[in-house]
Amino acid sequence: MNYKPFTDQEVIKYVYDNTNIFENINLLSCEEIGDGNLNLVFRIRDKKNKKSVIVKQALDYLRVAGDNWPLTRQRVKFESECLKIENDLTNGMCPKIYKYDTNMCCIVMEDLVDYEIMRKGLISGKKYNHFANNLSTFLSEVLFKTSDIFMNPVEKKKLMMNFINPELCKITEDLVFTDPYYDSESNNVNPELRDYLENYFWKNNELITNVEIMKEKFMTHSQSLIHGDLHTGSIFINDKDLKIFDAEFAFYGPSSFDIGAVIANLLLNYISWGGKDVSKEFRNDFRNYLKNSIIELWNLFEFKFKKLWDEKANKYYKSKEFRDIYVENLFHDSIGFSSCKMMRRCVGLAHVEDIDEIRDLKKRANVQKLVLKIGEFLIINRNDIESIEKLMSIIEELTSKYEII
Amino acid sequence: MNYKPFTDQEVIKYVYDNTNIFENINLLSCEEIGDGNLNLVFRIRDKKNKKSVIVKQALDYLRVAGDNWPLTRQRVKFESECLKIENDLTNGMCPKIYKYDTNMCCIVMEDLVDYEIMRKGLISGKKYNHFANNLSTFLSEVLFKTSDIFMNPVEKKKLMMNFINPELCKITEDLVFTDPYYDSESNNVNPELRDYLENYFWKNNELITNVEIMKEKFMTHSQSLIHGDLHTGSIFINDKDLKIFDAEFAFYGPSSFDIGAVIANLLLNYISWGGKDVSKEFRNDFRNYLKNSIIELWNLFEFKFKKLWDEKANKYYKSKEFRDIYVENLFHDSIGFSSCKMMRRCVGLAHVEDIDEIRDLKKRANVQKLVLKIGEFLIINRNDIESIEKLMSIIEELTSKYEII
Ligand SMILES: Nc1ncnc2c1ncn2[C@@H]1O[C@H](COP(=O)(O)OP(=O)(O)O)[C@@H](O)[C@H]1O
Ligand SMILES: Nc1ncnc2c1ncn2[C@@H]1O[C@H](COP(=O)(O)OP(=O)(O)O)[C@@H](O)[C@H]1O
Repeated sequence: MNYKPFTDQEVIKYVYDNTNIFENINLLSCEEIGDGNLNLVFRIRDKKNKKSVIVKQALDYLRVAGDNWPLTRQRVKFESECLKIENDLTNGMCPKIYKYDTNMCCIVMEDLVDYEIMRKGLISGKKYNHFANNLSTFLSEVLFKTSDIFMNPVEKKKLMMNFINPELCKITEDLVFTDPYYDSESNNVNPELRDYLENYFWKNNELITNVEIMKEKFMTHSQSLIHGDLHTGSIFINDKDLKIFDAEFAFYGPSSFDIGAVIANLLLNYISWGGKDVSKEFRNDFRNYLKNSIIELWNLFEFKFKKLWDEKANKYYKSKEFRDIYVENLFHDSIGFSSCKMMRRCVGLAHVEDIDEIRDLKKRANVQKLVLKIGEFLIINRNDIESIEKLMSIIEELTSKYEII
Repeated sequence: MNYKPFTDQEVIKYVYDNTNIFENINLLSCEEIGDGNLNLVFRIRDKKNKKSVIVKQALDYLRVAGDNWPLTRQRVKFESECLKIENDLTNGMCPKIYKYDTNMCCIVMEDLVDYEIMRKGLISGKKYNHFANNLSTFLSEVLFKTSDIFMNPVEKKKLMMNFINPELCKITEDLVFTDPYYDSESNNVNPELRDYLENYFWKNNELITNVEIMKEKFMTHSQSLIHGDLHTGSIFINDKDLKIFDAEFAFYGPSSFDIGAVIANLLLNYISWGGKDVSKEFRNDFRNYLKNSIIELWNLFEFKFKKLWDEKANKYYKSKEFRDIYVENLFHDSIGFSSCKMMRRCVGLAHVEDIDEIRDLKKRANVQKLVLKIGEFLIINRNDIESIEKLMSIIEELTSKYEII
């Protein structure tokens, strides 16, 4: 069969013919559930036997931008290979991959029915107490065990070759590190924010210089196999555990980019509550939960990463001093990447629902301005922030100083 | 024809059959001139018509270590592709490549008859006044034009994929960044130096931590297409110009590694004169020449690199502040790599003739100790040395403080 985007009927037949999951094709139904920006996502279900799977199929273009943004459908290879590796390294913290098809450019994978998208949960004010513990395990295992500190250097370079991912990296380079910092056509600008952008944000040379530094790091620091798009919409979660998915941006890049992405998306949620119709008590309480989650996430990550280092580092990366410098650099770079990932969600093409569900454009602009203020402070001062506790107290200070409710 | 190492007769026939350079096979003679550590190098000559070419053929092992150090012969691909790119970017500052044969794993290239190996020239006390100007052109053009600052990012990543060079990188990782810093079997240790190594050098944690930092940078910073082995034995030179050759270590790595390698080898020559039977006047004068060459090399490199940046940087790497930070980092990292490249030449497997031609082992050890003292100072203080002039005055100071003649 030659590649073409599946219809519902075709994908049912495809799954039935190509996997051993379902016994009776006549019991199968299909629904396209892709709220995603890039691909087709089908759920194929046998209601009677309570079984279902997900089929994710790549299109030849960026779905959110329409077919005038061409994009290789081979990208699905990066996703399937990355999820397999991450599953192996973390004892199954990603959906199981049942089949990966280079020809149809699709992945058949476990349906995470018992999970919800973390972003949606956070927007509805839900807390997940295991989050920091589980995500720090995921991050430390993957980022340590795909780095040169742990891997055989020849194997690492071969793996890196398999994950050279120019087109998807280009999207990040443009949408995270370039377009938001000038008046680009690709931006999606709240009219109530424009004044601030034109008269302040886009004129801020110090900020732009620091974004360029982070961009160059993103483009050249081949440190670990990173997920590349680890926001709260790439995390499926419930009260017990979590699963990481949507890894098509995976490549060998700076470890701090994944850590920064998670922190950024928690902070976006944190800031968003200033524009929402909730009680002060609720807001303070939920922000406290987010603050503690971020602090715990970093501290547990640092603890687990260093433990892995002490137990499993290659023979000639044994110096504790180097270990500490390496982790310190991760910390400062995470703040820098976090800042870029926050700012772009207020100016660039792709926003987050946490903020965009604020209908009143003036209120939304106030929230966005606070994000940009915080982003600006963090990227400029990232190397002087000495601990995660200090970071969070800076966030609290800037919020109480600049927030307009 | 299946791969096998050429005999003299075979290589004559090969060149005659596969190129249009020679008209009469009966006039051809051949000589194996490979003083090299890795490969077979043949000169094929037609004396009557005054033509000659070089054939470099890879073996399945590291020549210097014998056939118990296997090494893919496909490495010749990296050399031929790198030399082609460097020739294109620098208007011919490498030998012309006439033919590259994936099957026989050989390159037929221009015979640089009118040039001498720079290391040999320097050892004999010869000065080359155009050196800094020409080499700074080579370095600035290649390092700038293969970086993300200049290239299309998608093209850059594809090029980088072609230059993933795990086996040759492994040699550098081991011989430059690992083995010299402990009592490794692979080291080649002057017995008169052993005491110093055992009681001081191998116990110096601060030094070793900093070497690990540089090693990790070497392994992860995919900044530009670097030569990877740019010592004075990879530079052919005469009174008018120079040619860079022997590029089989090429890969996408830190630009500062190439700059550091050149400076290291000039400094090794600088230091070596303390162990030689020359007049004080000659020594001072030649050291002055080397000092000025190093200062000029960096200053011209900086000037040319910044000029290229200003004229040709990608649209979104335009900030002068970022440019200056980028070049400053190159400077400090060059000092760090320079240090590693110097130290390994006194402790590791491969030494340099500049020092090893000192027959008296005590005298040689004195020179080696000074190299190690200087290397130690440079790697620990690299980020505090603010200019190339300052670097050279530190070298002068340390030399007059520690030199034993
Ligand atoms: N394994 C899965 N189990 C359940 N739902 C999934 C699964 N994978 C994707 N989805 C649903 O499809 C949506 C889009 O998937 P995603 O991988 O984010 O696609 P895209 O890369 O196009 O953004 C997700 O937000 C989620 O709702
Ligand atoms: N293009 C050339 N023209 C003239 N002589 C060359 C050329 N290439 C190599 N040689 C000679 O062969 C020697 C070994 O070559 P090199 O490329 O350094 O091999 P290896 O990689 O095995 O060290 C050089 O030192 C030089 O004397």
